[in-house]
Amino acid sequence: MRAAANHVALSPLSFLKRAETVYANLPAVTYGDIRRTWGETSTRCRCVAAGLAEMGIGTGDTIAVLAPNIPELFELHYAVPLSGAVLNTINTRLEPETVAYILSHSDARLVIADTTFAPLLRAAFAINGNVIPVVDICDVSGTGFGQTTYDGLVTHPPMAWTLPTDEWQALALNYTSGTSGRPKGVIYHHRGAYLMAMGAVAGWALPPHPTYLSVVPMFHCNGWNHPWAIAIVGGHIIFTRDTTPAKLLAAMALHNVTHLGAAPIVLQMLCDSAEAEALTFEPKIRVLTAGAPPPPATLEKAAVLGLDVMQVYGLTETYGHIAQCLWQEEWDALPAAARAEKQAMQGVCFPMVEDIRVVDRATGEDVPRDGISQGEIAIRGNTVMKGYYKDAAATSEAFAGGWFWSGDAAVIHSDGYLQIRDRLKDVIISGGENISSIEVEAVLYRHPCILAAAVVARPHATWGESPCAFVELREGAATTEAEIITFCRDRIAHFKAPKTVVFGPIPKTATGKIQKFMLRAAARDLGVQP
Amino acid sequence: MRAAANHVALSPLSFLKRAETVYANLPAVTYGDIRRTWGETSTRCRCVAAGLAEMGIGTGDTIAVLAPNIPELFELHYAVPLSGAVLNTINTRLEPETVAYILSHSDARLVIADTTFAPLLRAAFAINGNVIPVVDICDVSGTGFGQTTYDGLVTHPPMAWTLPTDEWQALALNYTSGTSGRPKGVIYHHRGAYLMAMGAVAGWALPPHPTYLSVVPMFHCNGWNHPWAIAIVGGHIIFTRDTTPAKLLAAMALHNVTHLGAAPIVLQMLCDSAEAEALTFEPKIRVLTAGAPPPPATLEKAAVLGLDVMQVYGLTETYGHIAQCLWQEEWDALPAAARAEKQAMQGVCFPMVEDIRVVDRATGEDVPRDGISQGEIAIRGNTVMKGYYKDAAATSEAFAGGWFWSGDAAVIHSDGYLQIRDRLKDVIISGGENISSIEVEAVLYRHPCILAAAVVARPHATWGESPCAFVELREGAATTEAEIITFCRDRIAHFKAPKTVVFGPIPKTATGKIQKFMLRAAARDLGVQP
Repeated sequence: MRAAANHVALSPLSFLKRAETVYANLPAVTYGDIRRTWGETSTRCRCVAAGLAEMGIGTGDTIAVLAPNIPELFELHYAVPLSGAVLNTINTRLEPETVAYILSHSDARLVIADTTFAPLLRAAFAINGNVIPVVDICDVSGTGFGQTTYDGLVTHPPMAWTLPTDEWQALALNYTSGTSGRPKGVIYHHRGAYLMAMGAVAGWALPPHPTYLSVVPMFHCNGWNHPWAIAIVGGHIIFTRDTTPAKLLAAMALHNVTHLGAAPIVLQMLCDSAEAEALTFEPKIRVLTAGAPPPPATLEKAAVLGLDVMQVYGLTETYGHIAQCLWQEEWDALPAAARAEKQAMQGVCFPMVEDIRVVDRATGEDVPRDGISQGEIAIRGNTVMKGYYKDAAATSEAFAGGWFWSGDAAVIHSDGYLQIRDRLKDVIISGGENISSIEVEAVLYRHPCILAAAVVARPHATWGESPCAFVELREGAATTEAEIITFCRDRIAHFKAPKTVVFGPIPKTATGKIQKFMLRAAARDLGVQP
Repeated sequence: MRAAANHVALSPLSFLKRAETVYANLPAVTYGDIRRTWGETSTRCRCVAAGLAEMGIGTGDTIAVLAPNIPELFELHYAVPLSGAVLNTINTRLEPETVAYILSHSDARLVIADTTFAPLLRAAFAINGNVIPVVDICDVSGTGFGQTTYDGLVTHPPMAWTLPTDEWQALALNYTSGTSGRPKGVIYHHRGAYLMAMGAVAGWALPPHPTYLSVVPMFHCNGWNHPWAIAIVGGHIIFTRDTTPAKLLAAMALHNVTHLGAAPIVLQMLCDSAEAEALTFEPKIRVLTAGAPPPPATLEKAAVLGLDVMQVYGLTETYGHIAQCLWQEEWDALPAAARAEKQAMQGVCFPMVEDIRVVDRATGEDVPRDGISQGEIAIRGNTVMKGYYKDAAATSEAFAGGWFWSGDAAVIHSDGYLQIRDRLKDVIISGGENISSIEVEAVLYRHPCILAAAVVARPHATWGESPCAFVELREGAATTEAEIITFCRDRIAHFKAPKTVVFGPIPKTATGKIQKFMLRAAARDLGVQP
């Protein structure tokens, strides 16, 4: 029989409730001079939840947040759901128009904002024409809205622990970074976040009490759900606010960081910065990387720096990582470059994922495990979103036939490991051949002068499309279009080598993802290649 | 919206399905000359499931099993639920009367039995008067029933993967070892076993690919759900069938075992046997122990042997361990004996457990965290049984007020760690003072001559009850009642020291639990102490 004794809603709130007792005196959070235990952190979360309730917030309300990775944003990952509300962390690097759109679409009843983002918020309010209450986080100097402060919320008597009655209740609302079109609101529920966090502990083999550096922005898939996972193992989370490579490297050394997650672009910057100082970490720091396939060259450098990198793959719609490049012992014997090639695969299911397939959508069949045949990645599991907020049509389309369709093109290797070839819309079709922009980019990243590279399709008179490379050079480096094309032709099939090279800065999203839709437009503007 | 893409029934079957691909070529099982990968093991499980279906077994049917820890019993932990049926592993050391009772009460439609237990099964059938089909496991020589063999089931074409439609569906039926009265049938569901296994990985911090020695009998809480947990991390399970200390120690050395679970009595036998050979393991072997609180003396010896022991606590009703004595770094600095005292606590919640309280049932309040006040352990979580099979009254009583009542008496220390004092019915009340039999036994285990000890109440003319010790001496050791009483009085309060000492073998259950109900009867038979 189902009773209070034997049926409890799965919720990440339970992890903090347990940590409050089990890890009461262990460090939870360090940020500059601030150092708080799990007991203290848990109490603060419960106080903030009580403060929110006092403001009239309750079950199902949306609370938007604009903040960098600081303890307050971490606490809100517990305080907001404890109040019954839904946490809507907004990418702080978005333009006011999109912030305005999200605030409006999400039906946010309240915004909690770091004062440094008050100008952004004012601009968004001006666009919307409607204003909702604001709670200021006064972390650094800056003029907020002057209504209520986060520190004021903390002064409330702590709320008692309570769980949602239904584990399927909404927990978070995350807008896709949207490399094109309007962002969609992805709903997470308590059950999914619970299982995601448990799966992260098992899949990453998190030990008790890791020292975790908070780098992945929490506005991106709630930092891959790590704020919830770390509570399970009583880890110590280090916050730096400022995420320049020098600052992160200093924190890694000072706090003996053991674990972190970061986008490949961040890893590359860390490696470049550390290389200059001849820095290496021992024991190795265990790193998850995702967001874009890391170029093998970056992985090689990371190994030298003492980063034990596991590539993972996922989307906002899957709470973050759902595939992992699980290391195979036999790969130890390979030379460094070959090891980096292995690491560049997206791998196999995380433990909490039911299944990942790569499907030829024309036939509906799985592609053969040949490392060549491309298909679309389809995912099934409890860490697939509840759906898109107020967009039943998009939800139905995404879940067609009982699978979540990722929009990513991939191959499956003979060992069952999947490897992403491209976003489907990024595939370049030249003379009937599919060209993976990622494959071409991996070659470009091996060029000593190139700091960042992106390849998109340019209309071509003969072949329909041809690869067009956008490259950002390292400081002081100089090279030519012809030299780069030759460099590529020496390393991959000639038809895959760029036929155009454009030099200059490359537009990126807040999470370091290159905004290919802008580059595609730029390539189109170059006109049809004769 | 809830769809096939985003809602999957939680079931441990998913772990093997994933292992089949992710760990396809890694070792899953080693047993003598037999060595099988996860790919092979998974296929065998699916074949056996198909064979069971062919025999007419389907959803909700009960399949009883009588077998030692061998690969077949491990495989049945997946094959039986895949067929839709409920796994009823029966304690092989039970007397025919109880086996007959269980076979009848469980409504078993089929028994799968190692041929060495054919005589036990025949005796049980003779008592019941009814006979159900038997599948013989022909592992060692012995005459089975000659109807069907396990190896025959393996020849079927593998069944496709399928999950229960409801994660609350019954998975296993485990009869309590029953130190008194008729055993009760404890029902586990798929959701609970999934969460138990995930929680075991997180709580024990299982690394990828541990080498796990199968010692805990799988007929005891399904080996603490480890057959399911090990699949998550792609571990390698070593089976020995024979569990003599010499055999286990040899397997630990030969296979570089990294993890195992075992009752304290087994640890003690391992330590005694290893001590004779001056054996030590390096790196340390990580051990969970449960079933009875281990005497600190055993923990000290285990540390010398190279066993890194974590005490855990649970009951059949909680799928096995739900509390763990999580190590605190500051304990490192303590002397060995003090460290062993810390290890002797049952500790705090496993990650998947919602809450454990120690309650004064007279007032309904939590006992103070003083390490002295006793109450009953109450548990809430998803790894609390579905209920007792065909016993709604007992289920309701066990779940009174929204908690599962363990029947165990405990205290809570100031750090929130719980420590068991006794089964409630084992507490000795002498002159109005509660005496924990476990506390007195811990002292007795420090006596160099004593191999095993148990303390129960004996009627006393003045004090109502007095502690009566039953002791088993080591081979060749000699001592007297007076000497033992003095030994105890030197170490604990005089009123706690035994007033009677009885020498001789102590009756134990199959899992090494001392059968106190027999000793209580023996103590009563001694008459009222003047």
